[in-house]
Amino acid sequence: IRRPPRSTPLYSSAASDVYKRQKLNMSRRIRRTPYTGMVEKHGVSDFTVVNHMLLPKGFKNSVEKDYWHLSKEVQIWDVSCQRQVQISGPDASKLVQRLTPRSITKMETGKCFYIPILNENAGMINDPVLLKLDDDMFWISIADSDILLWAKAYALGLNLNVNIQEPDVYPLAIQGPKSESLMIKVFGEDIKKIKFFNFRIMDFEGTKQVVARSGYSKQDGFEIYFKAYDSHFDTIEMGEKLWKTIWDAGQEFNITPGSVSYTHLTLPTNRYVKISVVAVSLKKKRGWGG
Amino acid sequence: IRRPPRSTPLYSSAASDVYKRQKLNMSRRIRRTPYTGMVEKHGVSDFTVVNHMLLPKGFKNSVEKDYWHLSKEVQIWDVSCQRQVQISGPDASKLVQRLTPRSITKMETGKCFYIPILNENAGMINDPVLLKLDDDMFWISIADSDILLWAKAYALGLNLNVNIQEPDVYPLAIQGPKSESLMIKVFGEDIKKIKFFNFRIMDFEGTKQVVARSGYSKQDGFEIYFKAYDSHFDTIEMGEKLWKTIWDAGQEFNITPGSVSYTHLTLPTNRYVKISVVAVSLKKKRGWGG
Repeated sequence: IRRPPRSTPLYSSAASDVYKRQKLNMSRRIRRTPYTGMVEKHGVSDFTVVNHMLLPKGFKNSVEKDYWHLSKEVQIWDVSCQRQVQISGPDASKLVQRLTPRSITKMETGKCFYIPILNENAGMINDPVLLKLDDDMFWISIADSDILLWAKAYALGLNLNVNIQEPDVYPLAIQGPKSESLMIKVFGEDIKKIKFFNFRIMDFEGTKQVVARSGYSKQDGFEIYFKAYDSHFDTIEMGEKLWKTIWDAGQEFNITPGSVSYTHLTLPTNRYVKISVVAVSLKKKRGWGG
Repeated sequence: IRRPPRSTPLYSSAASDVYKRQKLNMSRRIRRTPYTGMVEKHGVSDFTVVNHMLLPKGFKNSVEKDYWHLSKEVQIWDVSCQRQVQISGPDASKLVQRLTPRSITKMETGKCFYIPILNENAGMINDPVLLKLDDDMFWISIADSDILLWAKAYALGLNLNVNIQEPDVYPLAIQGPKSESLMIKVFGEDIKKIKFFNFRIMDFEGTKQVVARSGYSKQDGFEIYFKAYDSHFDTIEMGEKLWKTIWDAGQEFNITPGSVSYTHLTLPTNRYVKISVVAVSLKKKRGWGG
């Protein structure tokens, strides 16, 4: 494969800082989330685009102030752009194993695995978290590339008996050292039983929700894979109810809105560097779901 | 397949207009193009994101003024985000035919075909233009979804003998009724020989460039599939040279920078409506590459 020339302008350069007035248009092409209205009310200053969906990039606080807040308190992040690729059916585990070099043979239901997804040249095209919901049902919680298309086309070519779709799941992250106390207040004492990179099915307003102990900050954190049940609720109404419930319960813990990333999420094109850093640091720390 | 509830907030709603101050961050995750520096100098007011790359959305003029200019004069558009999926090798045509229901059996080298790309349920996942460069070499000039991943995974599953990559090609569109006069000035009289939805290999500064008569405005237009040859040129330097050459030559034709789209490009999620409108209108008009 021919490498792009070193000068290929793949990413925004410092030169763009001169032109701060040119920002990205919040185009109707870009998908909103059930929480977008809430983050707007909280004074979001910027968005970026991940998986054709809005990702809040910052609020009123400076990055530094935000960092120290996250390391001591608790934050709520709209990470709906971490779309789920749901793979189900008789050949589900067979397909998932074809997608990643990490063995899922001994993976149990209720576990989260951090799995690299490689292309035909062993180049990284995504670094998602895999959730095993059942023996024949997985969610792949993806970074920024259309793994829905990758998985579907792979299955088509292999003629596998699977069903693949993007369900109406909008992850919400609760991050920081006070996240456990907050989550207990909302979901009950069973939150304590969730180990790192494991999930449990928890009740919220009569609906079953996947809640995992996972995320980006080392001081503890959770991701609620909020699923909209159209038979019961309006998606935005339900999402805002979840946000508000957590927000209200979080007042005593000094909750603020935050952002998953001031730097990068993996793209098909920046696949080589970040991943190894994350992998090593997480693996050293806590077993990394294995 | 379960349909998302009607209220699923897939796109920006009118509500977001209240919060005009929140714009998308021109994140370093989002790829620049060789022309981004030029469009910034021309006073671009907004960008959106297509295929993880910047797409200029507007300049100083109002949409209405811009429309009338385009219908009478000539414009230059940075459409680099129309990334090419290059499929080559012995099984190239076999794979391309698997991607679309439109027959390519009689397609000749030098032709452009507008091809819907469908998923396993016949849902539209992209509506690109296919260029046949040779019997075993195609470019698929894509709308906004990672067809690179779709094509690669399909080929992997089918175990086809193909090479698939995203080459360093950055399309530049010259649109409007005066585009032919301008293109002749830059590339020579052979421009006249290019019929609608055909392309020719033209010379620019000693490099071979694919030039097609195609695009979005009915008053005529061209797309230069500018390819960066790293053995010869710095990508940005070469891209800016192309832009400047056209810009200077276009002064007598009252050239302005423009934008491909004030509304939509196809996403995996808005696949049903726009396409039929475009298809019918183009097909009625000029044979549409067939």
